[in-house]
Amino acid sequence: MIQQLQLILPEMPRGFHLITDKVETFVHPLPEKGLLNLFLQHTSAGLCINENADPSVRTDLEYYFDWLVKENNPHFTHIYEGTDDMPAHIKSVLTGNSLSIPIHNNRLALGTWQGIYLCEFRNKGGRRKIWITVIS
Amino acid sequence: MIQQLQLILPEMPRGFHLITDKVETFVHPLPEKGLLNLFLQHTSAGLCINENADPSVRTDLEYYFDWLVKENNPHFTHIYEGTDDMPAHIKSVLTGNSLSIPIHNNRLALGTWQGIYLCEFRNKGGRRKIWITVIS
Amino acid sequence: MIQQLQLILPEMPRGFHLITDKVETFVHPLPEKGLLNLFLQHTSAGLCINENADPSVRTDLEYYFDWLVKENNPHFTHIYEGTDDMPAHIKSVLTGNSLSIPIHNNRLALGTWQGIYLCEFRNKGGRRKIWITVIS
Repeated sequence: MIQQLQLILPEMPRGFHLITDKVETFVHPLPEKGLLNLFLQHTSAGLCINENADPSVRTDLEYYFDWLVKENNPHFTHIYEGTDDMPAHIKSVLTGNSLSIPIHNNRLALGTWQGIYLCEFRNKGGRRKIWITVIS
Repeated sequence: MIQQLQLILPEMPRGFHLITDKVETFVHPLPEKGLLNLFLQHTSAGLCINENADPSVRTDLEYYFDWLVKENNPHFTHIYEGTDDMPAHIKSVLTGNSLSIPIHNNRLALGTWQGIYLCEFRNKGGRRKIWITVIS
Repeated sequence: MIQQLQLILPEMPRGFHLITDKVETFVHPLPEKGLLNLFLQHTSAGLCINENADPSVRTDLEYYFDWLVKENNPHFTHIYEGTDDMPAHIKSVLTGNSLSIPIHNNRLALGTWQGIYLCEFRNKGGRRKIWITVIS
């Protein structure tokens, strides 16, 4: 059985944002067992899973990705939408834009410390659309 | 319901290549709703999703990945298949080799600007095999 | 049809480890066709697919990831669990923590040279839990 929903997230500032609660509330109730796929319909933001507790992990991730993919690289040619544009595309490829998470006992089977992140790589990314597909 | 197909892509030059049309034509017709998984059976190429319009995004991605994972690194020990070999394995881990894309209204639910890329990291990668699994 | 199993891997040393045999033995027998999802319930380790033959690929991957995400970066603020902690979170985001692999003819449809890796990024990561979901 396939169920599909579209979650629209309001604009968030550049950075890594915990969205686990938003996702869990939106898909409630879940089937007893299955697989949930999140698919972000954008090329300058990403989805990933990481620590849900200490916010310093998210701060350090933002620092690191900004260091790894620097703005104003003179070799970039895709530059007319701003200095954050091409770095955002690259970061999106590095994080990926989709997650598949098991559903077990009517809940997302995340580990104790795992949360779902929206990675907003643009300065003004606008609202972001995520297709959610539940297979059960 | 599970359907499986094997898509064989002809050899492409090193770089990032848009293959959305090839995939959509190959899997036509799609079920009304479901999930499509693409699985590349190789360790020196990748699959990712990024901009389908301006080709400068693909050029800049190729520049960036070549900068990030330089050839002729004296620390590499897996070197007997050429200087592009070990960098290709690393790039493949960074991009991933599999994508899961929702199917909605008999179409891939890609965002307006999203396309499917084959990332060819070898100089002469040969043809590339992709297993396509459709769950509906 | 959905089947779920939890695979618990014993503690492994820091590095990239081939776990294909462990996974295949654990999920035997597989259905004729379907999709197998592996979901690692941790934020400081990863899952990826790469070469199953020459172990130098795994050694070079470890070298490369340690070079890319250096320890003792003075900008990191998430530091109280040791110098390997924040780099492990970053590496986990770069590799990802989940894989979806097609099942064809009752086997994982891996390419000739593909193996499944557990990427252990902590010095002492402890045992690691993987949820396996089989859709058929």
